Amino acid sequence: MAQTTSARRDATAAAPAPIVDIDYLQNYLLGQWGYARSASRALAGTDEFAAIEGIGVAEHRARVLEQLKGLVRHSAVHRAFPQELGGDDDHGGNIAGFEELVAADPSLQIKAGVQWGLFGSAVLHLGTEEHHKKWLPGIMNLDIPGAFAMTETGHGSDVANIATTATYQPDTEEFVVHTPFRAAWKDYLGNAALHGRAAVVFAQLVTRGVNHGVHAFFVPIRDEAGNFLPGISGEDDGPKGGLNGVDNGRLCFSRVHIPRTNLLDRYGAVDAEGGYSSAIASPGRRFFTMLGTLVQGRVSLDGAAVVASKLALKIAIEYGSQRRQFNAASDTDEEVLLDYQRHQRRLLPRLATTYATSFAHEKLLSKFDRVFSGAADTDEDRQELETLAAGFKALSTWHAIDTCQEAREACGGAGYLSENRIVGLRADLDVYATFEGDNTVLLQLVAKRLLSDYSKEFANIDVGGVARFVATQTAEFTLNRSGLRKLGQAFADSGSARRAAGQLRETVTQRELLTERVDARLAEVAAKLRPAARMDKVSAARLFNANQDELIETARAHVELLQWEAFTDAVDDIDDPGTKQVLGWLRDLFGLSLIEKHAAWYLMNGRLSMQRARTLSGYINRLLERLRPYALDLVDGFGYSHAHTRAAINSGAEGRRQDEARSYHRLQRATAGAPVHEKTLLARKKQAKRAASSRQR
Amino acid sequence: MAQTTSARRDATAAAPAPIVDIDYLQNYLLGQWGYARSASRALAGTDEFAAIEGIGVAEHRARVLEQLKGLVRHSAVHRAFPQELGGDDDHGGNIAGFEELVAADPSLQIKAGVQWGLFGSAVLHLGTEEHHKKWLPGIMNLDIPGAFAMTETGHGSDVANIATTATYQPDTEEFVVHTPFRAAWKDYLGNAALHGRAAVVFAQLVTRGVNHGVHAFFVPIRDEAGNFLPGISGEDDGPKGGLNGVDNGRLCFSRVHIPRTNLLDRYGAVDAEGGYSSAIASPGRRFFTMLGTLVQGRVSLDGAAVVASKLALKIAIEYGSQRRQFNAASDTDEEVLLDYQRHQRRLLPRLATTYATSFAHEKLLSKFDRVFSGAADTDEDRQELETLAAGFKALSTWHAIDTCQEAREACGGAGYLSENRIVGLRADLDVYATFEGDNTVLLQLVAKRLLSDYSKEFANIDVGGVARFVATQTAEFTLNRSGLRKLGQAFADSGSARRAAGQLRETVTQRELLTERVDARLAEVAAKLRPAARMDKVSAARLFNANQDELIETARAHVELLQWEAFTDAVDDIDDPGTKQVLGWLRDLFGLSLIEKHAAWYLMNGRLSMQRARTLSGYINRLLERLRPYALDLVDGFGYSHAHTRAAINSGAEGRRQDEARSYHRLQRATAGAPVHEKTLLARKKQAKRAASSRQR
Repeated sequence: MAQTTSARRDATAAAPAPIVDIDYLQNYLLGQWGYARSASRALAGTDEFAAIEGIGVAEHRARVLEQLKGLVRHSAVHRAFPQELGGDDDHGGNIAGFEELVAADPSLQIKAGVQWGLFGSAVLHLGTEEHHKKWLPGIMNLDIPGAFAMTETGHGSDVANIATTATYQPDTEEFVVHTPFRAAWKDYLGNAALHGRAAVVFAQLVTRGVNHGVHAFFVPIRDEAGNFLPGISGEDDGPKGGLNGVDNGRLCFSRVHIPRTNLLDRYGAVDAEGGYSSAIASPGRRFFTMLGTLVQGRVSLDGAAVVASKLALKIAIEYGSQRRQFNAASDTDEEVLLDYQRHQRRLLPRLATTYATSFAHEKLLSKFDRVFSGAADTDEDRQELETLAAGFKALSTWHAIDTCQEAREACGGAGYLSENRIVGLRADLDVYATFEGDNTVLLQLVAKRLLSDYSKEFANIDVGGVARFVATQTAEFTLNRSGLRKLGQAFADSGSARRAAGQLRETVTQRELLTERVDARLAEVAAKLRPAARMDKVSAARLFNANQDELIETARAHVELLQWEAFTDAVDDIDDPGTKQVLGWLRDLFGLSLIEKHAAWYLMNGRLSMQRARTLSGYINRLLERLRPYALDLVDGFGYSHAHTRAAINSGAEGRRQDEARSYHRLQRATAGAPVHEKTLLARKKQAKRAASSRQR
Repeated sequence: MAQTTSARRDATAAAPAPIVDIDYLQNYLLGQWGYARSASRALAGTDEFAAIEGIGVAEHRARVLEQLKGLVRHSAVHRAFPQELGGDDDHGGNIAGFEELVAADPSLQIKAGVQWGLFGSAVLHLGTEEHHKKWLPGIMNLDIPGAFAMTETGHGSDVANIATTATYQPDTEEFVVHTPFRAAWKDYLGNAALHGRAAVVFAQLVTRGVNHGVHAFFVPIRDEAGNFLPGISGEDDGPKGGLNGVDNGRLCFSRVHIPRTNLLDRYGAVDAEGGYSSAIASPGRRFFTMLGTLVQGRVSLDGAAVVASKLALKIAIEYGSQRRQFNAASDTDEEVLLDYQRHQRRLLPRLATTYATSFAHEKLLSKFDRVFSGAADTDEDRQELETLAAGFKALSTWHAIDTCQEAREACGGAGYLSENRIVGLRADLDVYATFEGDNTVLLQLVAKRLLSDYSKEFANIDVGGVARFVATQTAEFTLNRSGLRKLGQAFADSGSARRAAGQLRETVTQRELLTERVDARLAEVAAKLRPAARMDKVSAARLFNANQDELIETARAHVELLQWEAFTDAVDDIDDPGTKQVLGWLRDLFGLSLIEKHAAWYLMNGRLSMQRARTLSGYINRLLERLRPYALDLVDGFGYSHAHTRAAINSGAEGRRQDEARSYHRLQRATAGAPVHEKTLLARKKQAKRAASSRQR
């Protein structure tokens, strides 16, 4: 294999090495809302907004509150709000700007997200004009810091079953907001522990003895002095694993009276007499429509995860390009960490995935903007947006956590110091995997959407026939994958033996393999679940549960394919030839790493031959070698400066230390009388002895 | 598949379900040094020693220092020291006791480990009687808090190349300890930032112009008032990703003079005139012998990782057994989290691995004790101990990090609160993956040992012949796997088609598969590396690097097999039938999870057929169902109480909240005039309409 590698290297050396145009790449990655990203990055790189690692919880919370006021001063929070209130009606730009705040401090991103993204958005999207006029100006300028009181201690993922009630009293024209038991306390709410003056409270709306399901209410919670208003009580959630600049807390409502007009009544209204009305007849659909207007939380977490992954990789790859350890190949110079195969294996595939999540996020943001601007806002668009947001958020947040962890370990003990930033990012990003929708639950949501599309597409196919096809593992189905790409062709040539050598690097082969995995898994699990339609509730739930793991993995496969498609589209779109070439290799690395990760599936389902599968790892290793010289360019492409990464180890200090050490050692070797190592003496003695004995012979 | 599952469940129901004897299991897991573990757990469960989550760095450091004094008062730190100085000469008991301190606070374990395990052990093992008398009493009673100054900013894993020098001056009979450049500062040293009065400093010993390699020196660093002594300077490493009760820092030596007798000279001595002598002629062997006496650090981190995994799983599994979410199967009751297949998939295989690491650690500790007590202390024993310590430490610390993370996510938002303990454990354990040997480097050490054993075993086989065997993937080699078990038989029946259904649950099949993976990978990589012997240094290093990933994965396979063997031996050893049966299933889950994880390798190398591989996941899912009822028993078996886990969510509060909520909902349903859900009304209307229309017909 070593020979093959060298041969390839020589072959490559003959052609001129492509050059990445870093300015072009930076600009390309900034994307459609580059102006908002650049503005946010400018703020994130200042002392006013940059996190101070290791400060205490109280100090951190106070600092982030001040930073929120700073964002208002810098006019950085108004983009999503209506023009008549001083906003820009710019939904994509708003999200892009907020997610870049991660480079300052994820606590800042999240506290800003709570105030303007959740609390403010709920008033904007669930309230009507009167609410906007009354509250949005104070929300926008932070006169009314607020909490988004949806989650309860007893209900996180299952929002429909929250237990807080808001019961209408026609005699006083008030709603009575009430927490019936301990598990119904609102929990984990940013701004609730200290700073919130009001909250948008989600509660079961009851009028005339009928529960109309979950609605949102504007509820003042603290007076000007910061004391709870009558009937409100709460607890501080205390220190957390990260994000300690956000004051999360719990709220309890003990028959709190609010005016009827505090119901945010865009999707469901109650008249003075207690009559309920809604433009959406189905309570289920109404609920999902209301929740759907809040999808931006997930969209922005997806983007934030991309930013965090980029920062962690920039630190680790720059350090890995300077840091040296062990001198296997030389008596004098130690090896640069990133020249070790394992170090490349640890960082470069994650770099590829980070690019994939970045391109995928840009697509998601574009979809989001088109829905929220009204440019493309059908029911199907909204459903697709929700599915993409759920899937991308789940995979990108897990990826960010994993990447921060690998980056931290790749920097060794230095990686564990707060001054090197990665542990802080890692700790903050941790909760992104479970808030705004637990990732596991989100992937189930994706899986359900896939099943529903599938059943529509195959409504006219005989059920038994489908099952048989699946059982024999030969059927190939094509699906409309949420609009990203229609694959109109059955892959009849998926027989493993037919794949020629080197074919794995071809776009069409990667697409085919990644697509097959989704289609075949989906067909298989759909067939297994089909009997559920004719079962009682208990048996159907049991059948679903017996296939839960498979469902989630199917969803994962689908999202991975979408990420790969986004990467591929970006490579197609890039017109600088050097940049295109290198990103093409990186896309190959992403695709082949996915295929390697899931090689067992491909093998056991006859999609890859044993021989072909055995070549995968060697091919990936060669790609790593090819990409190694571009590692620094590719993290430079992210467009962050040291003002954003702020790690002591990527300040150039490591390189300077290495240079100083090398000068010292060189000087030592050149100095007469400098100590000689005992090992060297022994070697010389041995040599002399050998020479003497050969003279004697 | 659902039918199969139910059928199996019925079949199982016919036989009486086994019962786990929890007392027996707790006692079994306490192991040979149960007295020391119990004593430590008693301390760990008290307010004096329990961590306070979320306190600041300064307060945490001061508190842990006080706790160290408390350990002295409670006579909990003397076990490893000589009897003549008030110790017990009890090496195994000492480690067992220290590692249980993780249940109090990992910072306490590490700071105690620095003081008595590293600093104290260096004086004990590298020093001689005079050193023992002079310093050990003060080290034992904490009059001399000390640092273990080995790692430098520029050299972590590569200790042999540290740059600090200790040059002998015969005129004053002193060593001059010196830091020649910035990268040679000692770094990441516990006790260095604040509390250390002395340090054992590792430096290149130079006398008469010859560098005799790394030796250890006792160097006073601070006076009674806590000020640095002349020539010593330092920096605080500042806040870290965890372990903030340990005051890590940096030290720099500017021509610091120490008496000649401060050289810890058990393995290398310098006489007054500067003559160097050592009982070990080879400088390389001398270096490794000295380092080898410090192996206990790795041994105790392995055990500490096991403790942390147990605590995290106990919290998550108890919470998962009470917490309910979504009501797919019922109108009234929500599902318990641990009844979801995915939740089982997330936690139970990690429970199995935790048992495996626990049993493996007991074997390691026993080996350690026999070497250090002198009961079995040959060179081969020491090498084997080092290999086991390296391999087990690498896999168990990664496992602990992964398990804490999964446990945290499995507890949702609650898991992110410091009051629920898991995020703190996770953050503290993080650095276990890179200190006392970076895990990646440790696995390479294991791989090198495997290669060396392999080459000894096959010294008499024609090289080309071996290579050919490997190339055709048919050769089966047997190895002495570091003494744990000799496999004297070639597995000629490894052809996949020959494996009968259900055979995967058989011990012999699991062993065969796990063994084959090590042997075949090792043979393959050995063949690839064989040309290195005839290459120049640069080419050989390149060849090694091109196979680095494969080498590391071979080492991982080897360690996983050893863990599986340890689990299997424990199941054999257990005589309570119910406990044996359930642990047998858990062992199967461990073994099959390993085979599933590496299924791609088995498939692409013809060790598993496609059909057989496809049954794996279903079989694992059935094992999960079978083990589900025992999940609480299995975490109870760990023997920790709420005084050790101390998480608000495993205090029983969640169960009480659920009960209260259910009572409320039941009362609501029974109360006339309680609100009815709009969905229910719509359903009734539909039904009435249907009834009416059928009457009309």
